[in-house]
Amino acid sequence: MVTFAKMPELRLNLLTREWVIIQTERAKKPEEFRQRREKRYVPEVVESCPFCPGNENKTPPEIMRLPADGKWRVRVTPNKFAALLAEGERVRINEGLKHLVSGIGKHEVIIESAKHNVGLAQLGVEEIMDVLNVYKLRFTEVFKDPRVEHAIIFKNHGLASGTTIQHPHSQLIGTPVTPLQVRNRMDEAMRYFDNTGDCLVCAILRDEIKDGKRIILDTKHFVTFIPYAALSAFHTWIFPKRHAASFAFITDEEIEDLAYNLKMTLSKLYFGLDDPDFNYVVRSNGPFRFRSEYLHWYISIVPRLIQTAGFELGSGMYMNASIPEEVAAFMRGVKVS
Amino acid sequence: MVTFAKMPELRLNLLTREWVIIQTERAKKPEEFRQRREKRYVPEVVESCPFCPGNENKTPPEIMRLPADGKWRVRVTPNKFAALLAEGERVRINEGLKHLVSGIGKHEVIIESAKHNVGLAQLGVEEIMDVLNVYKLRFTEVFKDPRVEHAIIFKNHGLASGTTIQHPHSQLIGTPVTPLQVRNRMDEAMRYFDNTGDCLVCAILRDEIKDGKRIILDTKHFVTFIPYAALSAFHTWIFPKRHAASFAFITDEEIEDLAYNLKMTLSKLYFGLDDPDFNYVVRSNGPFRFRSEYLHWYISIVPRLIQTAGFELGSGMYMNASIPEEVAAFMRGVKVS
Repeated sequence: MVTFAKMPELRLNLLTREWVIIQTERAKKPEEFRQRREKRYVPEVVESCPFCPGNENKTPPEIMRLPADGKWRVRVTPNKFAALLAEGERVRINEGLKHLVSGIGKHEVIIESAKHNVGLAQLGVEEIMDVLNVYKLRFTEVFKDPRVEHAIIFKNHGLASGTTIQHPHSQLIGTPVTPLQVRNRMDEAMRYFDNTGDCLVCAILRDEIKDGKRIILDTKHFVTFIPYAALSAFHTWIFPKRHAASFAFITDEEIEDLAYNLKMTLSKLYFGLDDPDFNYVVRSNGPFRFRSEYLHWYISIVPRLIQTAGFELGSGMYMNASIPEEVAAFMRGVKVS
Repeated sequence: MVTFAKMPELRLNLLTREWVIIQTERAKKPEEFRQRREKRYVPEVVESCPFCPGNENKTPPEIMRLPADGKWRVRVTPNKFAALLAEGERVRINEGLKHLVSGIGKHEVIIESAKHNVGLAQLGVEEIMDVLNVYKLRFTEVFKDPRVEHAIIFKNHGLASGTTIQHPHSQLIGTPVTPLQVRNRMDEAMRYFDNTGDCLVCAILRDEIKDGKRIILDTKHFVTFIPYAALSAFHTWIFPKRHAASFAFITDEEIEDLAYNLKMTLSKLYFGLDDPDFNYVVRSNGPFRFRSEYLHWYISIVPRLIQTAGFELGSGMYMNASIPEEVAAFMRGVKVS
């Protein structure tokens, strides 16, 4: 691979067309991103936590739980502070330059465990399979509502990720519009397909496996790696090997493998960086187009180790003070135990 | 204006095509965004600060100062920790799916005052005019370098804005590529012009003045207002009334008016929210196309009052827990003294 040894590099993220400045010459070593956490005791059940067992009446009426009877392991409820309301019509109003759509949609909380004091990394593979199965069920379900145009599943872990609730949970938001970012990505995938007849995600995956330098983990159905143009330190992608437009099409066997892969990846972050704050997102199209040749879902993990500033705001470009190849090597070496 | 009284609203930012969720039903009152600052004494000169007078040798060799001789009021130096290097060739390497451009460009620091313990809001109008004149000079100058494709001027104020240096300063970064975000905005402006023969920024400005509800300040040459689809609480735009593609074309009279407008706007933020952290960006094209009918520069101010989370990361959409019309009314009412 060609690099500029003593110079920053601008690398192109082909999925988004965004350039990232890799600050090669003054990059930190991966271990320098390690957090310094004050260890303090957190109990398994917290009386004031709305997601802890015994407080089920503090959430809006439950949507589902696993198992259906008895003590639950995973529980889904509407978000009490919903960004979009479940009831109401999708109304559009155009008034000159003002375009308005009523804020209807879905906003659900997926409580990943009955235990307050664990992260997803600390759950067993079977417990994570439960969570992923619930993701799939709910993701498929929200698209049955014709008012929902797009949906994302995401997780906020830790204060810097934008959450104040420690109890492990994810969220699902179904929006009445397709966000610009999603449209741009679809457009890029389509352009690549126009030129090559190939799926861009499949092509990147083949290229990464061949190159090998940025791979963290290669399991039966998924490959975890640091993107060539990682937008920030420890930015990580998990790509499914099988071409599929939507997360809704994940198979049971893939769920089992993903649960293991995700546990390993998040555990490496946990042990390697001492429980960093992070977000992850399932970037997926809805289950509309079973046979799309160019759409391909994946997971993106973004540890929140730095604060973005005016440059990112004003340009949409990111600065990454780490070298993707070094971060991947570090992550490969982290012992998970 | 049509609104949904008890429902969130999705509003479209026409400059970017991004939808924002205005959380109408559970919006905070503008005054609830007030910070609680611990007041502590900060001296006018700090020995360890690289931007304070007496420490001029701690920065790379000076690019310019105002005035040219004697005690300086404004000083420009290369950024010691430059994101892009000033020396070197713009080289592009394509290797399969990997696209690389050498990280050359410009990264300058504009020290806005010799005083360590002031914000831009506390400077006099004439002092801010100095800063803006230096912006114009440097912005024009960096584009003389044929390796520079695009440039942004921005300011980080306070820890949450991504800076650790308190001494008032701005930055100028000239990049060897045009960022995607900028290209998207140009494309939107062009499409609007295709359909109407009009500049989108001019059209929005006329509309906002007519509507009036979101206006904060209307001075001779600039209008300050809360965008209809403000991406977060207190997000503010300052639009020049005269159509001009580039900040490089600002006149002396406009600089004087902008200095006053900016001082008033930032002072209202300072007194209204107790010195919130913020970024601002001069969104401008380079001085390439003097006669563009559809490009129009402006300033965007984004107070950093909340932490973005997985939803913003995964969708590019923002949630705004304030109502733009209420924020504008609040800002109009803030006494500056």
